[in-house]
Amino acid sequence: MPVLKNIGYLATCRDEGKQQDIHPVREAAIVWQKDTIEWVGPEAELPSRYTGTETLDAGGRMVIPGLVDCHTHLVFGGWRPDEFVLRLQGKKYLEIAQSGGGILSTVRATRKATEQELFEKASRFLEAMAALGITTVECKSGYGLSLEEELKILRVYRRLAEEQPLHIVSTFLGAHTIPPEYEGKRGQYVDLVIREMIPAVANADLADFCDVFTEESAFTIGESRQILTAAKGAGLVPKLHADQLSPGRGAELAAELGAASADHLEKISGAGVEAMARAGVVAVMLPLASLYTQVRPLNGRKLADRGIDVAVATDFNPGSAPSYDLPLAMMLACNRGQLTPAEALKGATICAAKALRRDDSLGSIEKGKIADFAVVDAPDPDFWIYHFRPDQCDMTICSGEILH
Amino acid sequence: MPVLKNIGYLATCRDEGKQQDIHPVREAAIVWQKDTIEWVGPEAELPSRYTGTETLDAGGRMVIPGLVDCHTHLVFGGWRPDEFVLRLQGKKYLEIAQSGGGILSTVRATRKATEQELFEKASRFLEAMAALGITTVECKSGYGLSLEEELKILRVYRRLAEEQPLHIVSTFLGAHTIPPEYEGKRGQYVDLVIREMIPAVANADLADFCDVFTEESAFTIGESRQILTAAKGAGLVPKLHADQLSPGRGAELAAELGAASADHLEKISGAGVEAMARAGVVAVMLPLASLYTQVRPLNGRKLADRGIDVAVATDFNPGSAPSYDLPLAMMLACNRGQLTPAEALKGATICAAKALRRDDSLGSIEKGKIADFAVVDAPDPDFWIYHFRPDQCDMTICSGEILH
Ligand SMILES: [Zn+2]
Ligand SMILES: [Zn+2]
Repeated sequence: MPVLKNIGYLATCRDEGKQQDIHPVREAAIVWQKDTIEWVGPEAELPSRYTGTETLDAGGRMVIPGLVDCHTHLVFGGWRPDEFVLRLQGKKYLEIAQSGGGILSTVRATRKATEQELFEKASRFLEAMAALGITTVECKSGYGLSLEEELKILRVYRRLAEEQPLHIVSTFLGAHTIPPEYEGKRGQYVDLVIREMIPAVANADLADFCDVFTEESAFTIGESRQILTAAKGAGLVPKLHADQLSPGRGAELAAELGAASADHLEKISGAGVEAMARAGVVAVMLPLASLYTQVRPLNGRKLADRGIDVAVATDFNPGSAPSYDLPLAMMLACNRGQLTPAEALKGATICAAKALRRDDSLGSIEKGKIADFAVVDAPDPDFWIYHFRPDQCDMTICSGEILH
Repeated sequence: MPVLKNIGYLATCRDEGKQQDIHPVREAAIVWQKDTIEWVGPEAELPSRYTGTETLDAGGRMVIPGLVDCHTHLVFGGWRPDEFVLRLQGKKYLEIAQSGGGILSTVRATRKATEQELFEKASRFLEAMAALGITTVECKSGYGLSLEEELKILRVYRRLAEEQPLHIVSTFLGAHTIPPEYEGKRGQYVDLVIREMIPAVANADLADFCDVFTEESAFTIGESRQILTAAKGAGLVPKLHADQLSPGRGAELAAELGAASADHLEKISGAGVEAMARAGVVAVMLPLASLYTQVRPLNGRKLADRGIDVAVATDFNPGSAPSYDLPLAMMLACNRGQLTPAEALKGATICAAKALRRDDSLGSIEKGKIADFAVVDAPDPDFWIYHFRPDQCDMTICSGEILH
């Protein structure tokens, strides 16, 4: 049975108390068997039955739960660096989208790509993410926008789940935008999502969640409600891209539907905050998206103080957040979103696991949970985010195996 | 003679045209002899006399000039993670400073540390900075605040210059803040800086520059003018920390004195912009400081459009910018400061070299300059900053030697 010893600071991130309570153990050890944690506690109390087994040394450093990136658009064709530069020169996202750039250019590139190409590209991302301490990645479709193309993307996620070591959670996002074929016929596209795509995705068991981009420029509250209600009926749990560019009552809809999470929320209203708090919907901060699109960032502290679980994720995608650097997103969630480092750490572990409804097995270091953790070259979370450097993850263990 | 071949994109960053003009060469090669660049151009035109020599392969990747961090406070004792967390919880910088935290707590820790301890700590930083592609580092004193303690810090910089490979440029910053011993006697401290410290620093040839923290809470315009005028008389080139927390005519003073640079400038006035443009003072953006202190960032684009050279630096210090990640500062200079990636790249190379008056030998890839460059795993600067990741620097060459 492997034992990780000499942990200077173990952030268990147990789901208890406030988000700032990460329930650390100092001078700690962890024992696991196959992919499951067997024992966690102060090394001085390590039961003698675990000594003499395979031992790893954390060198006095910090150990955290494997990071959970609960919001990515991992599979996409092409890249869009030109738009990035145009935005810096003052062009607005909607202008770029309306002139044929934006999501639709990624849709064209994704449709052209083969499953094998998409699989290889995403595999490389996952390998790099593992080196940052990430062990779970939520992955959305949404660059296909036809039955066949959406299924193609979701099949890539299934293959990734089977063939590479990180935990993959799939989300169907057929309602990402209206595809060009349905311009002026948005009702027909909503019907297609509801009548063909959702049943096909659910029947093939290709996703756990159904997400909608609820936004003035994408899907209305009414359309979102229709789509997500159908999804729930088919066994897919609702999620929403909500209140990113304009306050659109997306948070309120997430609460009404019992969504697992509402994501973005830069423009959330006071009523939206209250509704989410009452309904227990996880709020997902996406600070890289706010940074790259130059939107005022969400104040996560206000939500955490209201008792809402605040997750932190990358939103990795080729347009508004072309970076998969979750530690950087955590740092920005502090410096621009007013979370403390401890809150950001729970935000990228147990709260993110809750946004994926996997907090029974992921997101904290506790007996019985999956053996996912990262060794970070810092004495504690405050110092990690404070003296922020690339390359602070020295070891990543996923399902009990050393990945990095 | 070593040759670096197979460079997909060579950003020469020649000081010609606008800041966005980085004068790239595609499919390029570089030849150097000892520490000096001998030949730069398209690989197809590589003279035959250079073939058959020691060859390195850039693997089709981008090569940039070695990065120049033209503003750091590299030598300091201790750390201040607690203040970082207090700031996130809403405390203001000046409140923290007035309650005994801030710069003065670092002064106490620095005074306690030995030269050897400070040397070892700073050496580790430089090693990590080299891995990011950095080959030149400006280093300020300012945590000593007595003749002996300021000289101690500057001697550490001299030893770093002699014993480790990166280029070190030293700046005397005795006027960083009023030390506790001179509380209520600020005139006497200004006299000490002028009559004892500046002559001692100049006589021992321990610095090229003299900097002042010109700010309501630090040194007034009048005091700054006095100090920097004395410094000029002693052969030290003026630099200013200016207009960071309040618009205080620091930029105007920099222009009046012919300073090499004015740094921070978050609150620069329109008149300050004009004065700097006319006087040819380099503006140094410090986006990590704006991020960590939650000050509205400087719009670098406005300055670049007015023809001012805009450098980008880290301000690495244990209080307001506890990260030495210059590529991250460049990314923030784009996403929060409106520079394009090409401008940010010139900002962290040739413009930074100008802020150090070393653009005759550093900051661009041209025949006759020092052989400092970095191989970056990106096809061009736009893509580098767009798909931003840790660990994109694959090789650093400083004075012709491979460091990383
Ligand atoms: Zn998204
Ligand atoms: Zn500074």
